[in-house]
Amino acid sequence: MTQDEKLDRLAEIAVKIGVNVQKGQELIVNAPVDARALVQRIVAHAYDAGATLVVPLFVDDVVQRARFVHADEESFDFSPAWLYEAMAKSVGDGAAVLTIVGSDPMLLAGCDPARIGRAQRATAAAMKPVRNLISSFATNWSILSFATPGWAASVFPDEPRDAAVAKLWDAIFAVSRVDQPDPVRAWRDHAATLRRRCDVLNEKRFAALRFRGPGTDLRVGLAEDHRWAGGSVESRNGTVCLPNMPTEEVFTMPHKMKVEGVVSATKPLVNGGALIEGIWVRFEAGRIVEAQASKGQDVFRALIGTDEGAARLGEVALVPEASPVAQSGLIFRNTLFDENAACHIALGQALSLNMEGGCDAARGANESLIHVDWMIGSGQMDVDGITASGAVEPVMRAGAFTLG
Amino acid sequence: MTQDEKLDRLAEIAVKIGVNVQKGQELIVNAPVDARALVQRIVAHAYDAGATLVVPLFVDDVVQRARFVHADEESFDFSPAWLYEAMAKSVGDGAAVLTIVGSDPMLLAGCDPARIGRAQRATAAAMKPVRNLISSFATNWSILSFATPGWAASVFPDEPRDAAVAKLWDAIFAVSRVDQPDPVRAWRDHAATLRRRCDVLNEKRFAALRFRGPGTDLRVGLAEDHRWAGGSVESRNGTVCLPNMPTEEVFTMPHKMKVEGVVSATKPLVNGGALIEGIWVRFEAGRIVEAQASKGQDVFRALIGTDEGAARLGEVALVPEASPVAQSGLIFRNTLFDENAACHIALGQALSLNMEGGCDAARGANESLIHVDWMIGSGQMDVDGITASGAVEPVMRAGAFTLG
Repeated sequence: MTQDEKLDRLAEIAVKIGVNVQKGQELIVNAPVDARALVQRIVAHAYDAGATLVVPLFVDDVVQRARFVHADEESFDFSPAWLYEAMAKSVGDGAAVLTIVGSDPMLLAGCDPARIGRAQRATAAAMKPVRNLISSFATNWSILSFATPGWAASVFPDEPRDAAVAKLWDAIFAVSRVDQPDPVRAWRDHAATLRRRCDVLNEKRFAALRFRGPGTDLRVGLAEDHRWAGGSVESRNGTVCLPNMPTEEVFTMPHKMKVEGVVSATKPLVNGGALIEGIWVRFEAGRIVEAQASKGQDVFRALIGTDEGAARLGEVALVPEASPVAQSGLIFRNTLFDENAACHIALGQALSLNMEGGCDAARGANESLIHVDWMIGSGQMDVDGITASGAVEPVMRAGAFTLG
Repeated sequence: MTQDEKLDRLAEIAVKIGVNVQKGQELIVNAPVDARALVQRIVAHAYDAGATLVVPLFVDDVVQRARFVHADEESFDFSPAWLYEAMAKSVGDGAAVLTIVGSDPMLLAGCDPARIGRAQRATAAAMKPVRNLISSFATNWSILSFATPGWAASVFPDEPRDAAVAKLWDAIFAVSRVDQPDPVRAWRDHAATLRRRCDVLNEKRFAALRFRGPGTDLRVGLAEDHRWAGGSVESRNGTVCLPNMPTEEVFTMPHKMKVEGVVSATKPLVNGGALIEGIWVRFEAGRIVEAQASKGQDVFRALIGTDEGAARLGEVALVPEASPVAQSGLIFRNTLFDENAACHIALGQALSLNMEGGCDAARGANESLIHVDWMIGSGQMDVDGITASGAVEPVMRAGAFTLG
């Protein structure tokens, strides 16, 4: 298969499985200009699927950076509110949204952090209406990635530019199941697997999970009325979409007061530009009471000291070692990929879709300004489910699901 | 000077002279994705000039065409009204607009003309609010061109692709005064020249112009209360912009009943995809009564038969033979350039800015569905102004201005 054919298959999956645009529906495509070749293919597949209109809104990294280099101080409290309001109007009127990400992680290197912060706050405020529509699944939407040179360089820093981009594409195609004989079918099967896994776990209503592996013996009590989620979502317009591509996790809400024991990270954590390795922590009554790291220990301790909830868990997720992302052996420095490489826990804010009726602190939902995933799973990880009566049932053995 | 330096100068002229973006003003840049390198430079210059925010809205020719190839029949009555409404809101709130054109003239070759017509009507209807703000100069705006491969191929059909693009860039840079030592100064001087020329001609209040050259002896009576325009315009927000880049013409309104004599075209006319050469016509009482062409005569006769006003004049424009566009010797197949190559007349609709108080048929303003410019000037053209009392004053000799 040529690179063009693979890109076309990625576009087809994004349209048919990711956003699942419907006949008669408008589609907005947010994309970096660099992703033009993928956008062109997405547009063709979306029209083939019966979209009435496909509207790409391109952004250019160079243009973004030019502002921080050339603009006056007054500029940084502005954002194109009129454009985000228009997107909210279109989504409110039924448009689907497909977002392609791939910015250079080093894009704003050397720019004034105060300016970056002000610009981010102005954009966040202006985007709130459209962001709320997206996060509440008012419409079908999806996010996927494009291998830009800047991102590729951060994943393969020792490779020449073109080789780095080619390697990153190979990895994206592999974890996106583009290499499989019928990728659309493969994704339908995979989404069904994740859905079944959630159904089984939701039916079990475990009181806790127990993780055991090298350096890990952790009991994660689950929140009352917790709900497992993963894979596809039925949006409020009735269309089933797959919001993240790739996705391998099923995840739910820990009880913020009921985590006990020790856990060791199995992969490095990249946070705020810093690398943290060899994390080992001990929990008591839901809270980290001891924390070590072989590298970046100060950064890690500062992170868990952000606020009261930063030392407690907001998410626990199960990912099998057979996951294509895990099999790649790469650190993508992109959450869309890395959180699908292994079982993980997240420090900080809980997710409302993981509790019936939304987040409720009284039932165990954690609150924090942060939400940071870190990997604890491996091929040597065993996971048990523990029922309210204390019965123990195997969920994973040696990194593979035995249940669901 | 490298190509990059020339592109940077073009961007600087577009920002400082064309749209003349003001400190504290937002700027919308409409552009083909192909023009990304020019847009990046425009963004930098606009922020340097104090713009608060520069918002590029990119369009992709391939995406436009994909719709005609892949979409369902229902698609073609849709347009992204929410996006055009948002642009109108932004312009209404004070944003300036810079538009870069350069579409492949053959972009939609082979596509269903009925679908193209429906899509154009849907877009025209949705764009009406923003178009009205632009055409009434509610804000400062400008249009310039980018040498895309498709356009270059239509100007230099016998050249390989890269050579055609390079040649078209050379021509654009030359007619945009980018090659001159201080292009911004050169444009300020040029705009002042055009303004002075308009002032002098407006003061003269000629009753008619007489054109004499090989195959031409034409008396063009001017409309009552006619006004000469050209070069820069003061928009209603008080900012002076140069709406067309390049621009070489000063133009006014003929009296639709008062054109007499014969005139020969000095360059081929490209209209509706057809080439018309060797045009010779005779006017009586403002109307064409005899029309010949050595090539495309049927097309030309059909054109002037479109409606009653199509055989009368809506514009007369003076352009010196020294104009850089004339000196290039090229047919650009792009009105933004070609109408600046020679003195020309336009069949059809008159322009409201050319009459005090706007178009008025009783004072001589012509009405028609068409407005087609064709070139009658050359280095052998003499033009006289004739006053109401019959006094004759030279305006141009051998294609050069002697007045104004």
